[in-house]
Amino acid sequence: MSTDQTAAAAIPRPLAAVILAAGRGTRMKSDLHKVLHPIAGRPMLAHLLASVDAIGAAKRVVVVGSGREQVEAAVAGQSVTVAVQEPQLGTGHAVQQAEAALAGFEGDVLILYGDVPLVSSATMRAMVARLHAADAPAVVVLGFRPDDAAHYGRVIAADGVVYRIVEYKDADEAERMVDLCNSGLMAVRSDALWDLLARVGNHNAAGEYYLTDILALSGHAAVVETDPAEVAGINSRGELAAVEAGWQARRRVQAMADGATLIAPDTVWFAHDTVVGRDVTIESNVVFGPGAVVADGVTIHAFSHIAGATIASGADVGPYARLRPGAVIGAGAKVGNFVEIKKAVLGAGAKVNHLSYIGDADVGAKANVGAGTITCNYDGYNKARTVIGAGAFVGSNSALVAPVVIGDGAIVGAGSVVTRDVEADALVVARGRQEAHPGWAARFRARMAKR
Amino acid sequence: MSTDQTAAAAIPRPLAAVILAAGRGTRMKSDLHKVLHPIAGRPMLAHLLASVDAIGAAKRVVVVGSGREQVEAAVAGQSVTVAVQEPQLGTGHAVQQAEAALAGFEGDVLILYGDVPLVSSATMRAMVARLHAADAPAVVVLGFRPDDAAHYGRVIAADGVVYRIVEYKDADEAERMVDLCNSGLMAVRSDALWDLLARVGNHNAAGEYYLTDILALSGHAAVVETDPAEVAGINSRGELAAVEAGWQARRRVQAMADGATLIAPDTVWFAHDTVVGRDVTIESNVVFGPGAVVADGVTIHAFSHIAGATIASGADVGPYARLRPGAVIGAGAKVGNFVEIKKAVLGAGAKVNHLSYIGDADVGAKANVGAGTITCNYDGYNKARTVIGAGAFVGSNSALVAPVVIGDGAIVGAGSVVTRDVEADALVVARGRQEAHPGWAARFRARMAKR
Amino acid sequence: MSTDQTAAAAIPRPLAAVILAAGRGTRMKSDLHKVLHPIAGRPMLAHLLASVDAIGAAKRVVVVGSGREQVEAAVAGQSVTVAVQEPQLGTGHAVQQAEAALAGFEGDVLILYGDVPLVSSATMRAMVARLHAADAPAVVVLGFRPDDAAHYGRVIAADGVVYRIVEYKDADEAERMVDLCNSGLMAVRSDALWDLLARVGNHNAAGEYYLTDILALSGHAAVVETDPAEVAGINSRGELAAVEAGWQARRRVQAMADGATLIAPDTVWFAHDTVVGRDVTIESNVVFGPGAVVADGVTIHAFSHIAGATIASGADVGPYARLRPGAVIGAGAKVGNFVEIKKAVLGAGAKVNHLSYIGDADVGAKANVGAGTITCNYDGYNKARTVIGAGAFVGSNSALVAPVVIGDGAIVGAGSVVTRDVEADALVVARGRQEAHPGWAARFRARMAKR
Repeated sequence: MSTDQTAAAAIPRPLAAVILAAGRGTRMKSDLHKVLHPIAGRPMLAHLLASVDAIGAAKRVVVVGSGREQVEAAVAGQSVTVAVQEPQLGTGHAVQQAEAALAGFEGDVLILYGDVPLVSSATMRAMVARLHAADAPAVVVLGFRPDDAAHYGRVIAADGVVYRIVEYKDADEAERMVDLCNSGLMAVRSDALWDLLARVGNHNAAGEYYLTDILALSGHAAVVETDPAEVAGINSRGELAAVEAGWQARRRVQAMADGATLIAPDTVWFAHDTVVGRDVTIESNVVFGPGAVVADGVTIHAFSHIAGATIASGADVGPYARLRPGAVIGAGAKVGNFVEIKKAVLGAGAKVNHLSYIGDADVGAKANVGAGTITCNYDGYNKARTVIGAGAFVGSNSALVAPVVIGDGAIVGAGSVVTRDVEADALVVARGRQEAHPGWAARFRARMAKR
Repeated sequence: MSTDQTAAAAIPRPLAAVILAAGRGTRMKSDLHKVLHPIAGRPMLAHLLASVDAIGAAKRVVVVGSGREQVEAAVAGQSVTVAVQEPQLGTGHAVQQAEAALAGFEGDVLILYGDVPLVSSATMRAMVARLHAADAPAVVVLGFRPDDAAHYGRVIAADGVVYRIVEYKDADEAERMVDLCNSGLMAVRSDALWDLLARVGNHNAAGEYYLTDILALSGHAAVVETDPAEVAGINSRGELAAVEAGWQARRRVQAMADGATLIAPDTVWFAHDTVVGRDVTIESNVVFGPGAVVADGVTIHAFSHIAGATIASGADVGPYARLRPGAVIGAGAKVGNFVEIKKAVLGAGAKVNHLSYIGDADVGAKANVGAGTITCNYDGYNKARTVIGAGAFVGSNSALVAPVVIGDGAIVGAGSVVTRDVEADALVVARGRQEAHPGWAARFRARMAKR
Repeated sequence: MSTDQTAAAAIPRPLAAVILAAGRGTRMKSDLHKVLHPIAGRPMLAHLLASVDAIGAAKRVVVVGSGREQVEAAVAGQSVTVAVQEPQLGTGHAVQQAEAALAGFEGDVLILYGDVPLVSSATMRAMVARLHAADAPAVVVLGFRPDDAAHYGRVIAADGVVYRIVEYKDADEAERMVDLCNSGLMAVRSDALWDLLARVGNHNAAGEYYLTDILALSGHAAVVETDPAEVAGINSRGELAAVEAGWQARRRVQAMADGATLIAPDTVWFAHDTVVGRDVTIESNVVFGPGAVVADGVTIHAFSHIAGATIASGADVGPYARLRPGAVIGAGAKVGNFVEIKKAVLGAGAKVNHLSYIGDADVGAKANVGAGTITCNYDGYNKARTVIGAGAFVGSNSALVAPVVIGDGAIVGAGSVVTRDVEADALVVARGRQEAHPGWAARFRARMAKR
């Protein structure tokens, strides 16, 4: 789920990661580059970059076919090199396109796939560590044992040493009985990698240069195993949904194990970085976008949508609460139904219980914001801030036209449109006078009935 | 899902469809006729009528037991004859009740069941086409191979020719090993049908006339096979839910294959006619009612409910958006949370982001409708229209009392109640004056504290 | 689901229930006592207390380890004795802690586990009845046959008479083949119970007094079998969610069998006491909290949240309706989207269709409450009531400041803040005057463009 503890241990040598992302992704039927489709609210590529970051990779190269601009935009400011493979002559050829970007680099090279996004830092580290075992293989391949090995290539190995990698179609009966499969991911010593790649030929049906061939060429390859879920690949929206579902299922189990009650776990969606405390109750149908932090003892009621928000201990949120980025909900505060909070701080014990929009605002401790209150934070050009003092009481259906300050302990009469600051402990009323027209409704109905 | 391509091919002769719907449906425990219960937002009977329409059926007869009025009301204006079977003496007898309605008809007759609603047009067409194969059978029965054949009647056939139909209880061991089962659906030449039915006897335990008997009587019957999902029958609300679930599961797969991202596919519900474009993202918990059309590149956020609405390319909808019939959302427009749109057109790039009701309205391109805006479109008798001009800015918590026009580029001050037209580029303010009462709140609290 | 019919039959003798709840519940990672975690909106302990109540238990004792205060608070006013086991020397020792509370009691004693909450009244009654069969066993144990008996202790029995209870680790091959497992729940004659417990020793690896030992000591024990779902135990939040899921699945099947349509059953969550009528349609994503009663013919649309509310026949609720305790929705009334109703009565045919908060109110028959209406029921100290007369029409975006009465047939102009009573058939308007400032918006934009 999150950065693995063991991943924090030092890696033995400088590490570079090459992420292959040149596939056309045709089956996605998308204008968006395949590796930019999100899992748990984060692009696949970002998952991989975060995982290699977590083990301290010094260099990161992404090899793309088309869509270079999209990928470069996505990694802008992250010291990632985007290399282009054109034409596309196979996976071995793809890795070669990273050679220029890694000129002078000495250390270990992890070869990953942009559409295999959930390989953990711990697994990556295990691959690298295996390169430095006593027998010092030149290449380490990542294997996995799926429930149904089906037509995957097989890894014929003993005691972690690879004797042969064989495509399913070329495998004999005994080899097909082997359930250790080849994920294609590798760790390779940089001093071996480029030479090995240069020796890969393309004398095969497709006329492509296969990365897998370096295993045989190396003379000494090893295998490390991982959970099949980590190497699930994504070639279609259906597979994207399946990998998302798997990720969510594991995350829900983790949240419950950590002490949260999920009344209907299958209906809670986490983002990649959601933080949930202990004795938190999450009812059915709650969606977390990125950046949510939920402290101990919080209750999140059904149909809530939480992104970029921090919720302090004992707060009560929803149902139908929408917390957007910059929402900071104080201890014991209450956000009720059909309420949207954006870039706003609610003090401890503050209440916004019904049908309100609170944006660009500071709401003091124990303030009570009535039903239907709107902070008018935007004039079409600028956003301005609303301040509601501690203990203030904002009557229902009020509009607070920012910039405006409602002083501590002030009361705003229901239905007011407040455009000027209100001093502490004052009452402000800003609404029309009530005028009655006796019998008007009866006459109106009589007129309508005649038509 | 939708009209099958192959179904569009011409049928060889005039076609009539007889839909049997005389079952009491007791297990549904409903006052609504069983065949009027909906799947994917459309009554079962309507699914069948649409499918026979799609292959050009010239005549359509529904045979009911009770509830004739309900069924007639449901098919009003659709040139469907409703025949009554009373008393109910078996399926063969039921088909006979359609004879009067089909007097003079010459061609092929499809016999369908009202509670087996998802048979596709393609399957129906294959049944009819089989009647016209070189060996010219008089009767074609629809078979299927379920995962568990259980106690279904078996179709004993070779090369598509039926030798015998046998009830499970009457089948010998060899026959029970056969997994081809009898759905009961048939296609029959009209010149054979009525004679065959007249020869069916009722010398059986139930004393009923069984339609199945015409297969043996015909001397030459054929079988066409279909997917078991197409012939799933519905006798209870549990089976209704199961067929709905199957339909939804297939529809979700189709939407993803067509290029939509469904983050949590199991939580998206389509209607029978939902149209979804490419590079559409649908978050978790989205419900489509009938009549929704979603163009390419649209994002629909969680907890949205869309029916009878058209959403143009690049628009952004939800979370918690309710689009009702007649909502037309322009390209790149935005409908935010807790917003209801009904019979209203939003121009390109228009925004209605928060807590609003926009009904019977035209909102111009790039207009910005503030939080809490309500179009007051109803006076208890008439609906009237609100027009908001292009580029207009409606301040938060405003009420626009229709009929009313807000001119292009006009600004409505927050909290206004606008009852008269506003000219282009004007500012309008319609709210009370702000009056302050210093210290009032403090005195009020002191008074309350004493009580 | 609900109180079992057979449970209503008289029990043969006075009955006491001892509920063991001394486990630390460490794996729950919770400050809340394990038996107070809810299933279907009711604490586990409350499920058990309700079930023993249903068969007329005269005495109820809960044996806790820590958290006595929490449990006592939860059962306050329910004539339940909370006994403390300290130190905790095993299940036999735990039952002994109830001896003082049951001093003088003569009859049968049911021994239950607080973390096995879903044992039905019918099963409990069957256990007690077995004590009074002709062979008069002193002890009855509850057995079950799980899909996978795994490492459960086995019950070696014939014709309902127990020969031996054996831990899995002590069982021989033949005993392990037995699939009847020991739930640990028992019924014991009070005249045997305390003596048997006194004879239980602690000469085992854990040094604990095991309740199970009384079976062998009794010389004559019997077994009654139940559905494994009834004896599912809860030791973690994951198991809590699994038991909840099982309960919900069974409840949904029941609702459909009773004549409700659940379009997407897996997305409807019932509470322990939800009552649903016939020909009710419940769309996807509906959550019931405790206390909901839904009459025949009601439709509840997607994304609704219903707790403590009564909905009369033919009413139409949602989508996105929030009904809170005290909401009483009249026949044929309509509650629409983003509407919250609390402690309010809606008369027959009344409508509150959009974006409203109706709290502490009486809404007359056929009244129409416009979009964005808020009842201002709270001044920070007191709640006051709003009365809207029959046939009244409340214009959109109005605030009704309670206490206030809108007379029958009165009309409230849109955007009004009503603070004084409105007489029947009158029109009331309480809003500001509309003032236009021609050209202001154009000048504003020009100014902003220059910045």
